[in-house]
Amino acid sequence: MKIPVLDKGFVELVDVMGNDLSAVRAARVSFNMELKDEEKDRRLVEYLMRHGHESPFEHIVFTFHVKAPIFVARQWFRHRIASYNELSGRYSKLTYEFYIPPLQRFGQTRIVPEKVIEKISHVVNESYQTYMELLEAGVPREVARIVLPLNLYTRFYWTVNARSLMNFLNLRADSHAQWEIQQYAVAIAKIFREKCPWTYEAFIKYAYKGDLLREV
Amino acid sequence: MKIPVLDKGFVELVDVMGNDLSAVRAARVSFNMELKDEEKDRRLVEYLMRHGHESPFEHIVFTFHVKAPIFVARQWFRHRIASYNELSGRYSKLTYEFYIPPLQRFGQTRIVPEKVIEKISHVVNESYQTYMELLEAGVPREVARIVLPLNLYTRFYWTVNARSLMNFLNLRADSHAQWEIQQYAVAIAKIFREKCPWTYEAFIKYAYKGDLLREV
Ligand SMILES: Cc1cc2nc3c(=O)[nH]c(=O)nc-3n(C[C@H](O)[C@H](O)[C@H](O)COP(=O)(O)OP(=O)(O)OC[C@H]3O[C@@H](n4cnc5c(N)ncnc54)[C@H](O)[C@@H]3O)c2cc1C
Ligand SMILES: Cc1cc2nc3c(=O)[nH]c(=O)nc-3n(C[C@H](O)[C@H](O)[C@H](O)COP(=O)(O)OP(=O)(O)OC[C@H]3O[C@@H](n4cnc5c(N)ncnc54)[C@H](O)[C@@H]3O)c2cc1C
Repeated sequence: MKIPVLDKGFVELVDVMGNDLSAVRAARVSFNMELKDEEKDRRLVEYLMRHGHESPFEHIVFTFHVKAPIFVARQWFRHRIASYNELSGRYSKLTYEFYIPPLQRFGQTRIVPEKVIEKISHVVNESYQTYMELLEAGVPREVARIVLPLNLYTRFYWTVNARSLMNFLNLRADSHAQWEIQQYAVAIAKIFREKCPWTYEAFIKYAYKGDLLREV
Repeated sequence: MKIPVLDKGFVELVDVMGNDLSAVRAARVSFNMELKDEEKDRRLVEYLMRHGHESPFEHIVFTFHVKAPIFVARQWFRHRIASYNELSGRYSKLTYEFYIPPLQRFGQTRIVPEKVIEKISHVVNESYQTYMELLEAGVPREVARIVLPLNLYTRFYWTVNARSLMNFLNLRADSHAQWEIQQYAVAIAKIFREKCPWTYEAFIKYAYKGDLLREV
């Protein structure tokens, strides 16, 4: 599953360990019990979520491949209970891909939105031009890249358990988060729902603190 | 204690909880013992470090105030076992302060180093100019700031325990780390040594995996 996000980004499911039943099994270990019938198992998922017994959901783990602008990655990486590996601007040449916001992102501006885009594109091109000139002049990559802007796209692997993923959705699939990371959170939610439908439903019903996913 | 780092940055100790004796006390809890004489206490610190019993050092906690370029903060924030609070580009107007590398950072360049600085300063000024124009045009802060470059200075609070701080020093007070973050790591090490001299000495002797602090 690969979901396009923003103008050039994406969220891609690379790997997943477990599903709704992993949480059920983990919860039943305490009682030395096995899986029961579907109805009972599903009710247990609801029970856990309703009562804030969230640790059984840590046994479900996802790895995503994400392409996002640096300012989005900066917000994303603040979620510590997870693992990250990002493309390095020290070891590789960075490619020319910048996020250009859609017109509605500019709000009520005193100049036409097209002019705003033009200004952004212009300065971003100049930054990249300078980056290339510095590389050609022999400046090390790790130094040359400091002139690149925050809307440059980066890529990373994100491995996260379902509990921490739900915390991410609480905070980022919410209208208080920046609009751009909201779009990524909604894509993550779609994949989560697909892979763990019971957990997802119980989460939205009993534990979700945000607002965007109520309408998804 | 406030140590200047790079051209406009700093590391400042804001608060500290505990000292060498906190680790000694924590270690002795297991044996239901109190502090002994200085000689024995100090030897215990060495013993813990030599045998990798690092958890007692988690009871020593520091809060630092750091001013660093964004590309340094990006590397720093990868250290998850810590707490961060950073100045927000969504809620506040970002000030015009950019890191300009010293000449020796450019290596053997095909153009004179002064010309490299000129190129960097030029494009960085243009980015800031565009940022200001976008703000004046009414573009929201969180959108306007995406054109700003990675060498913009940011500020953050960093609360970290001594164990995680030592992991930071292992990785960042080392010649494999980028030169800029090395400078911050050396400043952190100075403050750490001042506040926890026994722990610092035992760390360098038995547990430090980097290379820069051997000469400090
Ligand atoms: C020279 C250098 C080059 C680097 N290059 C890259 C790069 O190209 N790309 C990139 O993405 N990163 C890169 N990094 C970042 C690096 O991968 C680490 O993310 C960063 O150094 C933080 O280290 P840490 O995980 O030990 O610290 P912390 O996150 O503070 O963790 C401290 C310790 O806690 C334990 N720990 C924390 N979380 C977990 C977990 N989820 N699972 C198991 N144990 C855990 C580990 O023992 C860890 O050492 C580089 C770092 C250095 C120093
Ligand atoms: C709308 C919005 C605005 C924000 N504005 C700012 C801002 O202006 N400045 C800023 O710096 N950040 C800001 N943030 C980032 C925010 O402060 C968090 O760093 C980020 O959302 C990660 O959340 P987390 O700590 O819950 O996630 P994780 O780091 O993944 O932690 C998951 C959970 O583990 C627990 N946990 C993890 N580490 C610790 C710890 N060391 N001590 C105790 N419990 C821990 C907590 O229960 C936490 O909820 C903002 C976030 C949002 C959503």
